[in-house]
Amino acid sequence: MRFAARVEVLLRPGIADPEGATIERALPALGFHDVHQVRAGRSFRFEVDAADELTARRRAEDLARQLLANPVIEDSELVLTVQAPAGEPS
Amino acid sequence: MRFAARVEVLLRPGIADPEGATIERALPALGFHDVHQVRAGRSFRFEVDAADELTARRRAEDLARQLLANPVIEDSELVLTVQAPAGEPS
Repeated sequence: MRFAARVEVLLRPGIADPEGATIERALPALGFHDVHQVRAGRSFRFEVDAADELTARRRAEDLARQLLANPVIEDSELVLTVQAPAGEPS
Repeated sequence: MRFAARVEVLLRPGIADPEGATIERALPALGFHDVHQVRAGRSFRFEVDAADELTARRRAEDLARQLLANPVIEDSELVLTVQAPAGEPS
């Protein structure tokens, strides 16, 4: 089966976020007085081939932890969906 | 009311994604033979104060288009959720 994975990588709470802070400082001058608490992160999408959802989830979490996020300063969040059921051409 | 917005900014289909390609090339050597189609993007979270969800959505979409994404090469996707109902301290 083929699964579609989306991983969002965000700085852990308490870690300085200069990109988010810079965007937030620029907002009032651009007319966005109603927007606060801007945090910037990274997003990844990929496909995982696996026999079942549990395996796919474990592989995607391993990948996120080892390659996509820096676990010292970042948290990652995974959303996994079935893309092609077993038996269909992937 | 206060709304929590999450914006995912990804390169449009067909636009070269060197970061995603670099990650994907590294995967087999790291044991991830089962992962394909890696795409890298950016993720933003922020809060919007607005009278109702429609207004909040419009403001968040304006912000994403004007500041977060480059509409020539990027698509943005918004997820909006109510964070604090009217009347509660925001």
